Amino acid sequence: MMLRFDASADPHRSGCPINLSLEVFGDKWSLIVIRDLMFGDRRHFRELLAGSEEGIASNVLADRVQRLVELGLLTRAPDPGHKQKIVYRLAEPAIQLVPVFAQLGAWGNRHLPVSHELRVRAELLEQGGPEFWDRFMDELRERHLGIARPAGQPSAFGELRAAYEAALAEASA
Amino acid sequence: MMLRFDASADPHRSGCPINLSLEVFGDKWSLIVIRDLMFGDRRHFRELLAGSEEGIASNVLADRVQRLVELGLLTRAPDPGHKQKIVYRLAEPAIQLVPVFAQLGAWGNRHLPVSHELRVRAELLEQGGPEFWDRFMDELRERHLGIARPAGQPSAFGELRAAYEAALAEASA
Repeated sequence: MMLRFDASADPHRSGCPINLSLEVFGDKWSLIVIRDLMFGDRRHFRELLAGSEEGIASNVLADRVQRLVELGLLTRAPDPGHKQKIVYRLAEPAIQLVPVFAQLGAWGNRHLPVSHELRVRAELLEQGGPEFWDRFMDELRERHLGIARPAGQPSAFGELRAAYEAALAEASA
Repeated sequence: MMLRFDASADPHRSGCPINLSLEVFGDKWSLIVIRDLMFGDRRHFRELLAGSEEGIASNVLADRVQRLVELGLLTRAPDPGHKQKIVYRLAEPAIQLVPVFAQLGAWGNRHLPVSHELRVRAELLEQGGPEFWDRFMDELRERHLGIARPAGQPSAFGELRAAYEAALAEASA
């Protein structure tokens, strides 16, 4: 599924896949928003704003969410239970960022002063490898796109959450 | 090997490995410079500037190179053959970005309007998987850190270059 990204807007743009990917994301905030929908299971603007570990500013969040919807990385729809509310969901191209996040998290774990609670989730993702990433992506498709995952497949999301909560409990013990 | 990254400078900084990694890179230019040293085998400021597919500005290049040296992602040293010239090399943490580039390139190939010549290298990197990435990292350690790679190990760099050149020749045929 191609993104709605107009490469002809800049005639000097290179067609390198790494460059184009980095241009799509721009600064760090787009990937942070996708991370929060993906790992934090947030769906509403308020949750994304109030739950932000990095203290994203409201105008920056509004701008990035709109850009991600326009690009085709997120979808927005009225909340079925709450007509005034808007629900954001990951679209397929954003779900396929799981391996990118896994490698970026593994790299950060090795080279940067990561906090204990946030380290364990990246470790689990790294150790799980492609089999775990596929399982996690199947589950994100179920949660965000309504496509049921294979019957009986254990929850990768549950494993990630349990690892994070155990580390949190350990830290406060 | 930890980077020289002062996480205490900002008390609101989150310790998430994905966030910290994205903060280290900032905008896209730092990763573009590392990509050009890694895949383009460029070592001098002039080559990085003149060979830039994305037309990096001289002041931006100077700033990002200095920042990457300060962080510990690149090293700088006088060129042994040319005392007035400076050679830049990848440090170990930058070499370990190979799997991140591989996943980012694979993602870009699937979702963005990538040019044919630049697609094939990312495809090779994706198809090669972790075995190929390890071999490429061994070779980068040889080229940039002076650590000989296992005897008889075929050149991943050569395979990447050959694939790129074949695609170039095909495009101009």
